[in-house]
Amino acid sequence: MTFDIIVNVALKDAILDPAGQSTAKVLRNMGYPVQDVRIGKQIKLQVTAESLNDAKEKARQMAEKLLANPVMETYDIVVRES
Amino acid sequence: MTFDIIVNVALKDAILDPAGQSTAKVLRNMGYPVQDVRIGKQIKLQVTAESLNDAKEKARQMAEKLLANPVMETYDIVVRES
Repeated sequence: MTFDIIVNVALKDAILDPAGQSTAKVLRNMGYPVQDVRIGKQIKLQVTAESLNDAKEKARQMAEKLLANPVMETYDIVVRES
Repeated sequence: MTFDIIVNVALKDAILDPAGQSTAKVLRNMGYPVQDVRIGKQIKLQVTAESLNDAKEKARQMAEKLLANPVMETYDIVVRES
């Protein structure tokens, strides 16, 4: 079975986000009432797995081992069958 | 009123994704049965607006004008009251 996995990776709240801050500044200069901007990654994967739970476990492992930096980032995972 | 906006920005399907391809290669070398990986941005904003529709319109404009490159990228928007 093939599964579509989305891993959203974000900086932890305590971590400074210079890219987000400069984007907020530009948007405010354009006249938009923006208070805060945080920029993260959205990683979409297609994976073969035995079951939905197997796909979720594989996604969790890939996020922990490679896709997210556990020191600075958090992640959330969405899995559905293709 | 304050609204939480999420703008997910992804490369159009026809656009090559070298970062995604190299991530897929590494994951396969780690033993994960990955067919495809596409890496995009997830931008979280806090914005002041008159109404939900006003927030959605502001989000659409910010995506069109700054957050997404219309030539190479697509975007989707999620808006909810803070």
